[in-house]
Amino acid sequence: MSHTLYDDGDHKVVLFTDLVKGDGIQANQLYIENHHHSAIFDPGGALTYQPLHMAISKMASIKDLDFVIASHQDPDIITSMDKWLMYTEAKIVISKLWERFLPHLVPGYLSEQQEESRIIPIPDQGAIIKFGESSIKALPAHFLHSVGNFHFYDTTSKILFSGDMGASLTESEHGKPVEDFEKHIKKMIGFHQRYMVSNKACKLWANMVRELDVQMMVPQHGRPFEGPEMVNNFLDWISDLECGVDRITQQYYQVPS
Amino acid sequence: MSHTLYDDGDHKVVLFTDLVKGDGIQANQLYIENHHHSAIFDPGGALTYQPLHMAISKMASIKDLDFVIASHQDPDIITSMDKWLMYTEAKIVISKLWERFLPHLVPGYLSEQQEESRIIPIPDQGAIIKFGESSIKALPAHFLHSVGNFHFYDTTSKILFSGDMGASLTESEHGKPVEDFEKHIKKMIGFHQRYMVSNKACKLWANMVRELDVQMMVPQHGRPFEGPEMVNNFLDWISDLECGVDRITQQYYQVPS
Repeated sequence: MSHTLYDDGDHKVVLFTDLVKGDGIQANQLYIENHHHSAIFDPGGALTYQPLHMAISKMASIKDLDFVIASHQDPDIITSMDKWLMYTEAKIVISKLWERFLPHLVPGYLSEQQEESRIIPIPDQGAIIKFGESSIKALPAHFLHSVGNFHFYDTTSKILFSGDMGASLTESEHGKPVEDFEKHIKKMIGFHQRYMVSNKACKLWANMVRELDVQMMVPQHGRPFEGPEMVNNFLDWISDLECGVDRITQQYYQVPS
Repeated sequence: MSHTLYDDGDHKVVLFTDLVKGDGIQANQLYIENHHHSAIFDPGGALTYQPLHMAISKMASIKDLDFVIASHQDPDIITSMDKWLMYTEAKIVISKLWERFLPHLVPGYLSEQQEESRIIPIPDQGAIIKFGESSIKALPAHFLHSVGNFHFYDTTSKILFSGDMGASLTESEHGKPVEDFEKHIKKMIGFHQRYMVSNKACKLWANMVRELDVQMMVPQHGRPFEGPEMVNNFLDWISDLECGVDRITQQYYQVPS
């Protein structure tokens, strides 16, 4: 159920792909550990909180969790925040655009107990997050799809956690890397055309990612892209994709009758 | 604490503006009643669940709630869904884009008890929601800011609940209608420039709204716009606003160093 993507003894990256049950969209969660420091990315909501908590507990002390890192504000990303605040001492890392929205996830009686906010807001230009003896780069990915959105590049493993970018709707073996890119397009295209905001944002994002040495790109849904060549296939494809507001017309905004 | 915006004996519209406490962004919630049927719009998350539940209980039986209607998927909009499912028999109405994301808000043991989904997905072109002896129009508002987004027009009161469109960051008297539009712009402009996705989407949306008789436009944050003239001021302003991807350049997407 868990996939160890990287392990050099000091630094470990683990992917969970099968924690969602029922009607919820399949989602991946990433766990990173470095010299007894740890972080989770996009833990999800009430649906995945308990299985994820249990899975991590088998590997490490939940109390040592430094960060709960969120690409954006969606139900499948960070809506279990109240529980991570209550049962760990982790800080919550998210775009500053959502800093004042996340408190809505926490009942009043709980937030009154907190002496100070445990939310670390990332400014629009991104940030470098010190993590154990390594670091994680928060890369701007605004409008892909969320207006305040980041992807996370692990500088040790060279894995890019790309949130919704590269997401695919696969039925099984979600942890298995993409093998045939052309065939894989049909698992991605509908989602990217509708949820990604514009080709302009896709292109600027892809240009930025090309400057990094990405050994693996892991989206939040579906299969990872392994190796620079496969990552490059994705960057080429997304750079040319018309999506979101590129595709809207007045026909799309009509009073229903 | 509550503002009755419309009441003809059979049909009532009530606005709540002061239920958010602490660090969360101020948010408005709307309640509509028609011949013993009722609906709430954008109830919010755990922070506002209890005060909103109590406020509505004073006016009506919570059991009679037909619909919990969400403009989009954000923390301040619909993340209390688990509680509304548990304590009422209401259906949840939201864009079909979020139909498979909302189940992430509900713990596995709760969703297993449900025989069928209580989510009603709205297709991209919108819908007319029958409500008591009246109806509510779900108007496409995609990309403003959420990629799957609706506003709701109450055909009896002619009130438009416009979600984030027209949102303002006001310190007090959130229920008081805007008086001086030019002065009010500075309470809106930063939010709209950054959270709204593009001028193209704004313009297409404004063209659609001009076809309706809107007596009041009530955003989810800050003050309402009263009367067709004030609504028109907003439509003129937003039609010309550059925002979101109109304003991004490669400078905006750089690897942080």
